Amino acid sequence: MKSQTIEVSTCRRNQMVDITRDLASALPSAFSGCALIYCPHTTAGLTINENADPDVVGDLLAQLDRTIPWNAPHYRHSEGNSAAHLKASLFGCSLSIPVIDGRFALGTWQGVYFCEFDGPRQRRVSIHLLAGLEEESRR
Amino acid sequence: MKSQTIEVSTCRRNQMVDITRDLASALPSAFSGCALIYCPHTTAGLTINENADPDVVGDLLAQLDRTIPWNAPHYRHSEGNSAAHLKASLFGCSLSIPVIDGRFALGTWQGVYFCEFDGPRQRRVSIHLLAGLEEESRR
Amino acid sequence: MKSQTIEVSTCRRNQMVDITRDLASALPSAFSGCALIYCPHTTAGLTINENADPDVVGDLLAQLDRTIPWNAPHYRHSEGNSAAHLKASLFGCSLSIPVIDGRFALGTWQGVYFCEFDGPRQRRVSIHLLAGLEEESRR
Repeated sequence: MKSQTIEVSTCRRNQMVDITRDLASALPSAFSGCALIYCPHTTAGLTINENADPDVVGDLLAQLDRTIPWNAPHYRHSEGNSAAHLKASLFGCSLSIPVIDGRFALGTWQGVYFCEFDGPRQRRVSIHLLAGLEEESRR
Repeated sequence: MKSQTIEVSTCRRNQMVDITRDLASALPSAFSGCALIYCPHTTAGLTINENADPDVVGDLLAQLDRTIPWNAPHYRHSEGNSAAHLKASLFGCSLSIPVIDGRFALGTWQGVYFCEFDGPRQRRVSIHLLAGLEEESRR
Repeated sequence: MKSQTIEVSTCRRNQMVDITRDLASALPSAFSGCALIYCPHTTAGLTINENADPDVVGDLLAQLDRTIPWNAPHYRHSEGNSAAHLKASLFGCSLSIPVIDGRFALGTWQGVYFCEFDGPRQRRVSIHLLAGLEEESRR
């Protein structure tokens, strides 16, 4: 399977990094199918959201931090980053994106984000290409 | 890749629309593999949940609205719909559903929902077919 | 399409069960592509998170229960498990995991979890193999 890995450096505890371009460079020009984007970490995730106004991702991270507080008396995990683990599960660590003629079939305002919930850290994201059903093979 | 797009009209700010039948009509009768359902919007999402009692999706949207409030003093995004963006990331904008012999392999009570978080709007959802590994090609 | 189903028994209302090994046994040794893991239930989900310290999943479930309370005066669904339905949508019922040479390409600390939100119950999870784009077919 055709796969590729990119590196992502984060500089804050909570941060969303637009990785759309880095991932798009891994798409063969004539490929149509699905790109599986995968994050191998347990305190970070992936999402697709607006890439126009940076206040969107700022608000998103701020509200998420209020919803899932970093400190809480009931947390028992010794590393103290239980909130980051829960955020990772809420956002998820994989994305499936349709690709048509070598381009992500994203909406007009969509960008692909790496979501850091326990930074700063050096992270990795992989992209894997899955075969689409060919037009001629449909029955 | 075989793909198709459906239109969804929403009439409330928060609304879950059962799109299972519309999507199922895009499945070739003998196809087995994966259906990738994709929402190209940033204030709406997709989910799979109960399709029997309509109170389930009502309760779900009501609780989500309490968890992620529409108005909050820390929101800075000028469009005022930051809550919708966060809900979109929490639910996600893509679904991968196994398809066996031309039918979604859904559970007994499962339906596929388009989730509007900033309506009313006219929306789109696409469905893309991915090739399953054939029985004879396993090694 | 090559598919397999595993059974999962849960013994508490909220419980995360590590099903990584059960799923991995369904992977053909030379397969590279994507494993689609699917949960056909509406009050349970799937996630990938840390498999080292059991306090992580304990904290995760405890905080999720605070964020999405089991009892609330606005719930109308007669079965009384609306919180479980919302948690199921927040976590999602499918996972796409890259597989390389017959092994899940999971991160060092990642395990695959069945997430029970309305147990105890007898549950099922299916795994389906999707074809990766072959190296030689990239253009």
